[in-house]
Amino acid sequence: MKTAVIGGGSWGSAFCRYLGGLDIPSRLWIREREVYETALETRENAAFLPGFPFPQTVSFTPDIREAVLFGDVLFVAVPSEFCRSVYEEMAPHLRPEQIVVSLTKGLETVTLKRMSQVMEEVFLDRPPRGIAVLSGPSFAREVAGNHPTAVVVASANPDTAGLIQHLVSSLIIRAYTSRDVTGVEIAGAMKNVIAIASGIVDALRFGLNSRAALITRGLAEITQLGISLGAGRETFSGLAGIGDLVLTCTGELSRNHRVGYELGTGKTLPEILAGMREVAEGVHTTRLARDLASSQGVEMPISEQVYRVLYENKAPKNAITDLMSRSLKSE
Amino acid sequence: MKTAVIGGGSWGSAFCRYLGGLDIPSRLWIREREVYETALETRENAAFLPGFPFPQTVSFTPDIREAVLFGDVLFVAVPSEFCRSVYEEMAPHLRPEQIVVSLTKGLETVTLKRMSQVMEEVFLDRPPRGIAVLSGPSFAREVAGNHPTAVVVASANPDTAGLIQHLVSSLIIRAYTSRDVTGVEIAGAMKNVIAIASGIVDALRFGLNSRAALITRGLAEITQLGISLGAGRETFSGLAGIGDLVLTCTGELSRNHRVGYELGTGKTLPEILAGMREVAEGVHTTRLARDLASSQGVEMPISEQVYRVLYENKAPKNAITDLMSRSLKSE
Repeated sequence: MKTAVIGGGSWGSAFCRYLGGLDIPSRLWIREREVYETALETRENAAFLPGFPFPQTVSFTPDIREAVLFGDVLFVAVPSEFCRSVYEEMAPHLRPEQIVVSLTKGLETVTLKRMSQVMEEVFLDRPPRGIAVLSGPSFAREVAGNHPTAVVVASANPDTAGLIQHLVSSLIIRAYTSRDVTGVEIAGAMKNVIAIASGIVDALRFGLNSRAALITRGLAEITQLGISLGAGRETFSGLAGIGDLVLTCTGELSRNHRVGYELGTGKTLPEILAGMREVAEGVHTTRLARDLASSQGVEMPISEQVYRVLYENKAPKNAITDLMSRSLKSE
Repeated sequence: MKTAVIGGGSWGSAFCRYLGGLDIPSRLWIREREVYETALETRENAAFLPGFPFPQTVSFTPDIREAVLFGDVLFVAVPSEFCRSVYEEMAPHLRPEQIVVSLTKGLETVTLKRMSQVMEEVFLDRPPRGIAVLSGPSFAREVAGNHPTAVVVASANPDTAGLIQHLVSSLIIRAYTSRDVTGVEIAGAMKNVIAIASGIVDALRFGLNSRAALITRGLAEITQLGISLGAGRETFSGLAGIGDLVLTCTGELSRNHRVGYELGTGKTLPEILAGMREVAEGVHTTRLARDLASSQGVEMPISEQVYRVLYENKAPKNAITDLMSRSLKSE
């Protein structure tokens, strides 16, 4: 079995490096020329995962066709905004025995589709054997540092999920399976919005009680949205749900939390984004969450306030205070 | 409306101080003579809540009868091991129009009963108008510092829950209601066990991915136990469930997390307990969780490993490694 990872950001690199470490021959597709050339030379992704050299089992390519031809299983870890075009580049080279796994945590702009839905659409004429998504609380740097990490692999086809589970599991990564693709993808995308809110709360020194309440109410609104889209409630209590939400809202390694934190200290969104090399998916997802919530008739008060801070220049402190003073009700 | 708080530890003191701050005349029962006398003199609980003077609306008493006579609503915040005897001291003075609210997060030794069950038993001959429990992510020091905090008030009687909700709600504390007394109490007690495990994981530097996975799997086993006892699943996704679990597992103010952390650094349980003035409920609850799980036929792998570390001298590192290497399955 050979694998390819499409996308040389921090998560794609860490995941490919991990697969290589399991003695699975793996090829990493790196689009950025400079990052690719440095990787060839130094065997490190100096831009996005410095300090963690790749094992000899990992090869690099700037040619997506080469990556698709190489892997029996293809893991795709590109930002959501590039997914459709990357899938389209992959599609002509796909073989019917391959499995494609999405590692992306976001939704498509305008269509509001989940990544696996976009894949199904783009791969319609040359469908792979299976499509799966992999999610859960997994900071790239910790996986690179061999810290034990649990993830969930979801696929409509249990055989596909089981195959990926066994492929990626080791003493470092422990994979659970699920059939709830919708739930896993919605949870993975939406937690980034709550993470921005959590960063704001932290910057404004509201305290840990407030942050815990925010995480809880955030989970509630994500769950409502997910259920309205056909997801199972249990998924949101699992690794892709509360697990990833807790990690992203409380860990210092989260880009989305950092966006919120810097908003809380008074920086503007353009200033913050100018200082980040990798995408903070939550910034886009906040807009999409609003559209999705409105089309589904679901109330998402936290996401709504994050939207107002990001896109309507609402003062972060007012946003949080407005959240806290909503009318009393039962849980 | 007047209130009394039974128990002068950090949470009882912070809660009584908070009620006084709402201009509700409140009396705090402090059993420890020295703490009581210092409070009278300095208007502070120097032992358990230093730095937060009580407003003039708060009075102190060392006589539990005086406290019970004073309050229309009685909040009880004593460690679980003393609850039955304290309830017995209260019982002869109870009036049928009073409401009693438990703030304790633990179970009774031997009987494995929840605090509200013990109340019902002890108050059988002189039942108050209502019994409720109040729980959720609420570090005492943060409430004392006016940090916004959300809690849940559960009672079998919705009128009782609603009355307490309105009594305690302000811009600082936001109370939601629930009818799931069992769920709220089981969640509140059991999260302390997972917090010990989380402290171990932190001390051993397993990392944030591991901690998030532990919290998620901890929630799963607590939920299973709760459901087997008749609780509703949703409660565990709420403030008393995941909210308090996240707070206790990630916040530095948690005594239970501290116990785990110090175990992880190699200290023994007696050494750790010798250094703590207030009870870490999780130490007792771990034993009770094991009995409860076994009587309910529920598997609680994390609680089981915490038990082995606390009571069978299992090396913390081996306990966590054993947890991580359990057989693969679906979520």
